[in-house]
Amino acid sequence: DLHQQENYFSRETLDRLSAKRTDKVWLEDKQSDPNTVYLLFSNLSPMVSSSQEDDNAGGETRLCRFRYEAVKDLLQKPAAVLIFLGVEKRKKPSSQTAGSVQEAPAWFAINTDEDAAELLKRCREKNCCFPKTPNRDLLKLNEEEAGVVAQARSVSAWHSRYSFCPTCGSSTKLEEGGYKRSCLNSDCRSLKGIHNTCYPRVDPVVIMLVIHPDGNQCLLGRKRIFPVGMFSCLAGFIEPGETMEEAVRREVEEESGVKVGPVQYVSCQPWPMPSNLMIGCLAVATSTDIKVDENEIEEAQWFPRQQVIDSFRGTRPAFTVPPRQTIAHQLIRHWIGMNSNL
Amino acid sequence: DLHQQENYFSRETLDRLSAKRTDKVWLEDKQSDPNTVYLLFSNLSPMVSSSQEDDNAGGETRLCRFRYEAVKDLLQKPAAVLIFLGVEKRKKPSSQTAGSVQEAPAWFAINTDEDAAELLKRCREKNCCFPKTPNRDLLKLNEEEAGVVAQARSVSAWHSRYSFCPTCGSSTKLEEGGYKRSCLNSDCRSLKGIHNTCYPRVDPVVIMLVIHPDGNQCLLGRKRIFPVGMFSCLAGFIEPGETMEEAVRREVEEESGVKVGPVQYVSCQPWPMPSNLMIGCLAVATSTDIKVDENEIEEAQWFPRQQVIDSFRGTRPAFTVPPRQTIAHQLIRHWIGMNSNL
Ligand SMILES: Nc1ncnc2c1ncn2[C@@H]1O[C@H](COP(=O)(O)O)[C@@H](O)[C@H]1O
Ligand SMILES: Nc1ncnc2c1ncn2[C@@H]1O[C@H](COP(=O)(O)O)[C@@H](O)[C@H]1O
Ligand SMILES: [Mg+2]
Ligand SMILES: [Mg+2]
Ligand SMILES: [Mg+2]
Ligand SMILES: [Mg+2]
Ligand SMILES: [Mg+2]
Ligand SMILES: [Mg+2]
Ligand SMILES: [Zn+2]
Ligand SMILES: [Zn+2]
Repeated sequence: DLHQQENYFSRETLDRLSAKRTDKVWLEDKQSDPNTVYLLFSNLSPMVSSSQEDDNAGGETRLCRFRYEAVKDLLQKPAAVLIFLGVEKRKKPSSQTAGSVQEAPAWFAINTDEDAAELLKRCREKNCCFPKTPNRDLLKLNEEEAGVVAQARSVSAWHSRYSFCPTCGSSTKLEEGGYKRSCLNSDCRSLKGIHNTCYPRVDPVVIMLVIHPDGNQCLLGRKRIFPVGMFSCLAGFIEPGETMEEAVRREVEEESGVKVGPVQYVSCQPWPMPSNLMIGCLAVATSTDIKVDENEIEEAQWFPRQQVIDSFRGTRPAFTVPPRQTIAHQLIRHWIGMNSNL
Repeated sequence: DLHQQENYFSRETLDRLSAKRTDKVWLEDKQSDPNTVYLLFSNLSPMVSSSQEDDNAGGETRLCRFRYEAVKDLLQKPAAVLIFLGVEKRKKPSSQTAGSVQEAPAWFAINTDEDAAELLKRCREKNCCFPKTPNRDLLKLNEEEAGVVAQARSVSAWHSRYSFCPTCGSSTKLEEGGYKRSCLNSDCRSLKGIHNTCYPRVDPVVIMLVIHPDGNQCLLGRKRIFPVGMFSCLAGFIEPGETMEEAVRREVEEESGVKVGPVQYVSCQPWPMPSNLMIGCLAVATSTDIKVDENEIEEAQWFPRQQVIDSFRGTRPAFTVPPRQTIAHQLIRHWIGMNSNL
């Protein structure tokens, strides 16, 4: 099955051009290019403008875009973090008329701790803000912009948490277009050979829909922090020395007491809070008794397929499904579609 | 296709019992239990004994196992890192005769910087050593022990690189059976809320066999550091804000110039040098011209299926295949088996 499901946060509109990260001249050139697009982040939150006054009505928000002239002073501030995101992907291969080939615009993100109210004054659009609750507000972007935010926010979050060298405790400096931090202590071990301490961290997480041995029920759980009535897939961090399949089996048994046999990968989703890679799987249970780990899960339950379908339809819902932007939603929907028509 | 392939480093013989990591009394009890098994690591290398004098003959090596009495002095050393690995998985559910239920032995790893020669004297087995080249020597274990080493070495490598808090540069202390490090600066941001800085790092990597559009050739490359004549799959780190499928497409194009369409996950493998998760995929090329990135790859080439089969058989090999313990080997073998019988 080569069909690729597309999840929110996963559309790539930029070509990362990672080879250019070490090309200082090219990068500086692009920084001052009038076609270059800048995104502004304050405390890891992107400046967005919302289409509706009432933020709660679920209106879409759009990223505020800036040109070099509007942000060049910020680039001088020592605490500003500048990240090269890539260049716009060409829809069609450009016509190679010698000399007139226009280069695709480059994108950068700036994360700064300057006063947020002052930063907002730089934008001429209406209803600009830096949203406060990423888990909710970053789900209101369109698919095109969500992917760029996933990249920019994850890398920015890494800089904000990893500004000291974990090997020796010294300060570090930012390099390679925002994709590397090097220790300033010239005796540090991290400068000899290649070490992951210098590169952005991505945390792989398994998230799984567990299917009852009868094939007609699925296991969903709720954390205490979930909105009332919402149930979702179980999930957990992959540990060192573990495969994703083993992580699925371990986390399901830890959190619900249910034992799992075969595991099948479905699709994955970057989740930039702060920098997870959600690896979505279907898993077949080999036992059915539930015993929740109350530190992690408030409740877990087998839901019959028909109840799940009703919850998606919103007709007599037995529970609330997670929002469509989550891979949990897509995994559950995928299972419903597998053997029955919704 | 729910068939699960088993890769080297991926067999789990222990139940990690992660809930016990916060149970100090239980952990201390297990530490001094006479049934507990200790593995000794020096500079991230496990003490092993080899069955043959000649190390190059490819003989199997076994982990040296210690009891509490033989290592308890090491546990007192401030620089020693102690990691709780889990308890042995029961082959069969134990017969529940009240009072006589014997608990499964616990396993711990100790990583120490004490003098290696002195450490070796503690073992009564022959031909003990701390192998020097993990990439080669750690491939000589049996499957059962390889999984334990993957876990122990990855976690130990994290401690050795991450002993300072990356958020503020302070020292940290080890907690939760070796699965957490907490900052000793009580004002540190990393102590408010949950942050990945406190937990072991796992780096997800994609490794892929790229299939020619004609279905009958595959793309293999070689790095300068490979043994003469060896070709293997392309691979690269998944970046922040990226899916594994996009990472496959990006890395293949970066390293070889070849464009890739559909990507299919096959299986994964923990790789404890230092703590990668190798995610193995098949990928279908949509272009065929090769242009290697010479910083990463020395050479890349399309190999016809018959040449690959010959290389596995060792009859008129066009190139050398990577060792069977690597997921690259298994991916290539998987592809050969897909449409033809070897
Ligand atoms: N990389 C990580 N980031 C955040 N929490 C982690 C990480 N690794 C392990 N944890 C722990 O895992 C818990 C969440 O459990 P789970 O997601 O089920 O594995 C958190 O509360 C942390 O204690
Ligand atoms: N987590 C990481 N650990 C080590 N090297 C990394 C990491 N992330 C990015 N790199 C860089 O990626 C290079 C290897 O390229 P690749 O494996 O093809 O992505 C290394 O030489 C590093 O410059
Ligand atoms: Mg869990
Ligand atoms: Mg967990
Ligand atoms: Mg969980
Ligand atoms: Mg690469
Ligand atoms: Mg790379
Ligand atoms: Mg590579
Ligand atoms: Zn350092
Ligand atoms: Zn700190």
